[in-house]
Amino acid sequence: MPLARLSLPARLPEPKALALADAVHRSLVDTCGVPEADRFQLLLRMPAGSMILDPHFGEVSRSGEACVVEILFLRGRSEAQKRALYASIDRLAQAAGLRGDDVMVALTENGPIDWSLGHGKAYGD
Amino acid sequence: MPLARLSLPARLPEPKALALADAVHRSLVDTCGVPEADRFQLLLRMPAGSMILDPHFGEVSRSGEACVVEILFLRGRSEAQKRALYASIDRLAQAAGLRGDDVMVALTENGPIDWSLGHGKAYGD
Amino acid sequence: MPLARLSLPARLPEPKALALADAVHRSLVDTCGVPEADRFQLLLRMPAGSMILDPHFGEVSRSGEACVVEILFLRGRSEAQKRALYASIDRLAQAAGLRGDDVMVALTENGPIDWSLGHGKAYGD
Repeated sequence: MPLARLSLPARLPEPKALALADAVHRSLVDTCGVPEADRFQLLLRMPAGSMILDPHFGEVSRSGEACVVEILFLRGRSEAQKRALYASIDRLAQAAGLRGDDVMVALTENGPIDWSLGHGKAYGD
Repeated sequence: MPLARLSLPARLPEPKALALADAVHRSLVDTCGVPEADRFQLLLRMPAGSMILDPHFGEVSRSGEACVVEILFLRGRSEAQKRALYASIDRLAQAAGLRGDDVMVALTENGPIDWSLGHGKAYGD
Repeated sequence: MPLARLSLPARLPEPKALALADAVHRSLVDTCGVPEADRFQLLLRMPAGSMILDPHFGEVSRSGEACVVEILFLRGRSEAQKRALYASIDRLAQAAGLRGDDVMVALTENGPIDWSLGHGKAYGD
């Protein structure tokens, strides 16, 4: 909570895949107040042909290594925090060798009562 | 942005899978004002037994080719647009040989600030 | 509608995987007013290394069999219903041999107009 789902082309080298996962978590911690230990990520390796991503929409130039990062997290982050989140993911992903054009992010929000981390208890109870 | 996720049984022939993906995008363009180039889709091939879909709920009769289409897109589409979207997907999917009973759609919404298409920038910035 | 997505480690034995799917549906019926026949579930088997889940966050102790259950359903369930849902999933999952530490749940909501169960019709039309 957050829960991040990374859709990664099969051809993306493993070190880059893990670096992107690290970048996403680091950025959530640094910009959105997510606790360091609050890391929950699902990595999906997508076979060739299973990611249909327009190569240019949004004034970017996507390659065969383009990834989609979906994050479900708590409502309440400001627009400034979301902008900082995107910038941080981009900076860290690029530092790990990914292209800035190849990282797309989509956020969805829910509330604290919408999470149970285990033992059948609602988050915060 | 929209982002569509299609869960497709492994046994669904590839031409039908791609036709459904086309139908979904065409319909978003035609009914919801999505730009032609704004196409982002993830196609998941689901092995036998991994899709548990009631065969009849909702007054339909699902076959082993039943698919689930999830679309995440911007808040603001009217109920009329959503109805037109469903009708269009159905019409185009059937034209490609899929059964009208076999296409289920679920929509989730977010806001413009919830998307980054690349370069670490929020959509619209 | 609801649509549940279960991310299950590949090493989780099949009977436990199916038992968790049953537990999720049974609990939706018993606590959230979901009709018995309204069952739509996607089961994703996740290879080793593809689920990065903190082993302890949230005062639980996750094992290599930890699962993530995502449920998309209609807005309107009360906090009490959601708490009952979590407790029921936990109770039934444990009865089937899963550990209470190994089941995480995340809810997302939408509206009735956001579903089409087939034939290109909006739910309820």
